[in-house]
Amino acid sequence: MSSIRFEQNLSLKEKPDASKLEFGRTFTDHMFLLDYTEGQGWHDPRIVPYGPFTLDPAAMVFHYGQAIFEGLKAFRTKEGKVMLFRPNKNAQRLNVSNERLSIPALDEDAFVEYVKALVEVEQDWVPSTEGTSLYIRPYIFATEPCLGVRASKQYLFAIILSPVGAYYKEGIHPVKINVESEYVRAVRGGTGFAKTAGNYASSIKAQEEAKEGGYAQVLWLDGKEHKYIEEVGSMNMFFKIGGEVVTPELNGSILAGITRDSVLHLLKTWGVPVSERKISIEEIYTASLEGKLEEAFGTGTAAVISPVGQLHWNEHTMVINDGKIGELAQKIYDTITGIQNGTVPDTFGWNVTIGE
Amino acid sequence: MSSIRFEQNLSLKEKPDASKLEFGRTFTDHMFLLDYTEGQGWHDPRIVPYGPFTLDPAAMVFHYGQAIFEGLKAFRTKEGKVMLFRPNKNAQRLNVSNERLSIPALDEDAFVEYVKALVEVEQDWVPSTEGTSLYIRPYIFATEPCLGVRASKQYLFAIILSPVGAYYKEGIHPVKINVESEYVRAVRGGTGFAKTAGNYASSIKAQEEAKEGGYAQVLWLDGKEHKYIEEVGSMNMFFKIGGEVVTPELNGSILAGITRDSVLHLLKTWGVPVSERKISIEEIYTASLEGKLEEAFGTGTAAVISPVGQLHWNEHTMVINDGKIGELAQKIYDTITGIQNGTVPDTFGWNVTIGE
Ligand SMILES: Cc1ncc(COP(=O)(O)O)c(C=O)c1O
Ligand SMILES: Cc1ncc(COP(=O)(O)O)c(C=O)c1O
Repeated sequence: MSSIRFEQNLSLKEKPDASKLEFGRTFTDHMFLLDYTEGQGWHDPRIVPYGPFTLDPAAMVFHYGQAIFEGLKAFRTKEGKVMLFRPNKNAQRLNVSNERLSIPALDEDAFVEYVKALVEVEQDWVPSTEGTSLYIRPYIFATEPCLGVRASKQYLFAIILSPVGAYYKEGIHPVKINVESEYVRAVRGGTGFAKTAGNYASSIKAQEEAKEGGYAQVLWLDGKEHKYIEEVGSMNMFFKIGGEVVTPELNGSILAGITRDSVLHLLKTWGVPVSERKISIEEIYTASLEGKLEEAFGTGTAAVISPVGQLHWNEHTMVINDGKIGELAQKIYDTITGIQNGTVPDTFGWNVTIGE
Repeated sequence: MSSIRFEQNLSLKEKPDASKLEFGRTFTDHMFLLDYTEGQGWHDPRIVPYGPFTLDPAAMVFHYGQAIFEGLKAFRTKEGKVMLFRPNKNAQRLNVSNERLSIPALDEDAFVEYVKALVEVEQDWVPSTEGTSLYIRPYIFATEPCLGVRASKQYLFAIILSPVGAYYKEGIHPVKINVESEYVRAVRGGTGFAKTAGNYASSIKAQEEAKEGGYAQVLWLDGKEHKYIEEVGSMNMFFKIGGEVVTPELNGSILAGITRDSVLHLLKTWGVPVSERKISIEEIYTASLEGKLEEAFGTGTAAVISPVGQLHWNEHTMVINDGKIGELAQKIYDTITGIQNGTVPDTFGWNVTIGE
C-alpha cells in the first residue's frame, strides 16, 4: 500500500441515507486510478478525489469498446468491521476478461490490494443497516487516441465506489422471467464468458422488451440452437428438479459468477446433489408439467439469490413453488448473506477484512 | 445550417503531409457535437475546437459500452471541389445501429447536414494527392453517470475528422486471409448487423492471432454452424465463381456495407450475374479445387476494394488468380474511386458536394 499515492479530497460529501439510495447513482469522495502505457506497463497507482476523466475524442473506448469491468461489495459487520467477499475471484475474472479483449493483465494480488486500500480510505461510506453495502466497481478501458482497429496501447484502470441500499427492502419477492426467443446474448467463440462492456450494451434491447411485457428479466438461451439455458441478465441460473440441483455448465458463453461458485461450494458441503451440465428449456418445461420443478433461482452479487416465481416460454407459463421462495434458495441466501455480514462462520475463508 | 453554433478554433494546426499519415492519428481543428437528454431530445448542434471530453467516471459508455459509430470519407476532385460518397447511407445505418442498442434515433437529413457543415468548415484539411481523403468519424456514446444496466438517458453525438493517406501507395497488393475457426464475430439475434463498439472489441484477439500467423485479416464464419462465410475484419466479401459473382446475403449477423451496396449496383448495371446468398467455405474450397474460383475481394470504405490473393482454411491454401488482382476487382475499384474523385460520371447520384 505504501506505493499508492494518496491525494485527499478536501471537500467531502455528506453521506446519504442508505434506505433511499438508487443503485449506482451516488459515489464516494475518492477513486482509485492506475495507468497503462505500452513499454511501461501498469503504473502510478493513486487514490484521488472522485472527479471527471479528460479524454481525447479519439480515445479508443468510444469507438471500439475495449472495456471490461468487475463488481463486488464491501459489507459492515455488527462489530463495525468492513469485509470484502472473495475479491481474489474478481481479480482472476478481470484477467479472463482482459485476455479476451487483448487488454494487458493486472497483477491479481495488486488488484486486491488496490480494492482494499480504496475501501479503507472510504470505510465511513460502508453503510451499516441490514442488507446495505458498498458496491465496488473496478473497470478498465482503452484510452489511446487512435482510430485504427487494434488493441489500444494505453489504458486506464479505475475503481469507483457506490453505497447501495438493501436489494430486498420488503422481503424476498420471486420474479417473473421471460425466456428470450429472438435476441441472443452470446455464442461460443464470442465474449460471453468475459465481463466486457459490449456484452451489456447488446443485452439492453431484450431487457427493455421484457420489461414492457411485465417481466423482471430475460433468460437467455444459447446462440447456436436456441435450446439450452444460459443465464439471466446479471445472474446465473439454478434449478431444483426432483431433489437434484442443476445449473448450466461453464460452456464458454456464460459468465462464471462468483455467487454461482459459492452456491456450488455450499451445496456440496451440505450434501445436496448438484450438477453442472447442459439444461434445455424443454427439460425445464417437462419437469414443470410433471410437478418436479421444485425451485428456480438466479445468483449474483446484486441480490445474492433471486428466486424465480414464474417462467414464461413462448405460450407456456411455469409457476414455480407456488410463486414463493423455495426452502433451499432461502437457506443459501441466509448462509451467504450471513457469511458476508459476519453472523455465520466463514468456514471457506471467503471474507477479506479491511485493515488487516 | 443556420442552427449550428460555431466556435472558431483560434490556434489552427499545421496541415500534415498526406503521404506520411498513419490512419486515424491526426485530427482537424474542429469537431461537431450534439447532445441528447431524455425529455429534451437531441439538441445544441455545434462546431467547436477539437478538444478533450470531460466525463464522469460513472458515464455508462465506460461500463456497458452503449456506443455506435459510422465511417465515411470526403474526397477532393481535380477541380478542387470536395465531395462525400453516399452520406445518406451512413445516416440510415447509424439509425439501424442506434435502434439495436436502444439509442435514440437521429434525424437522417440532419446527420448529413452536420457532416456537410463540419467538412465545409474544415475543407482545407481535405488532401488532394491521389488516393488521399478526409476520413469522417461520426459516433454516439452513452454519457449518463449511472451503474444500472439499462439504456442511458444522455448521449453525445460527435463527428471528428482525420486526413488519411492513400491506402494503396505502391499499387494494389492482394492480401493473405485466414478463415477463423475458433473465434466468432457475431450470431443472428446479436449485434453483427449494427456498427457497435463492442463488435470491434471482440474482434481484436482473432485479428492479432491472424497477424501473428502472417495474415492480413480474418474471414469470419457464421457463429451457428461455423460453415458459412460472413465477412472480413472491416470488409464485406465477394467471390467470382465460374463467371458469377456471389456475396453473403444480409442475414442479420453481417454489416450492410455501403461499398458492398455500391458494388452490387455497378455489377447489375454492367450485366454481370450476381447473387446474394449463403456461401459455405466448403463451396469456395471446391470451386478453388475445380479451378473455378476466379476472384475474391473485400469491399469497404477504407480500401474500396481489397483483393484476396490467398485464402487459408485449416490445412488448405487457396491461391486466387495467381495472387494477382482480378479484372473485375480492378474495374470496380477504378469505377468507384473514379466516381469519388469526379473523374467517372456519377450516374447513380452518389456524390454530395460540399457547399452546394
Ligand atoms: C452476465 C452475468 N452473469 C452472471 C453474473 C453473476 O456473477 P457474480 O455472482 O459474480 O455477481 C453477473 C453479475 O455480475 C453477470 O453480469
Ligand atoms: C464489420 C464491417 N463490415 C463491413 C464493412 C464495410 O462497410 P462499408 O463499405 O460501409 O465501409 C465495415 C467497414 O465499415 C465493417 O466494419
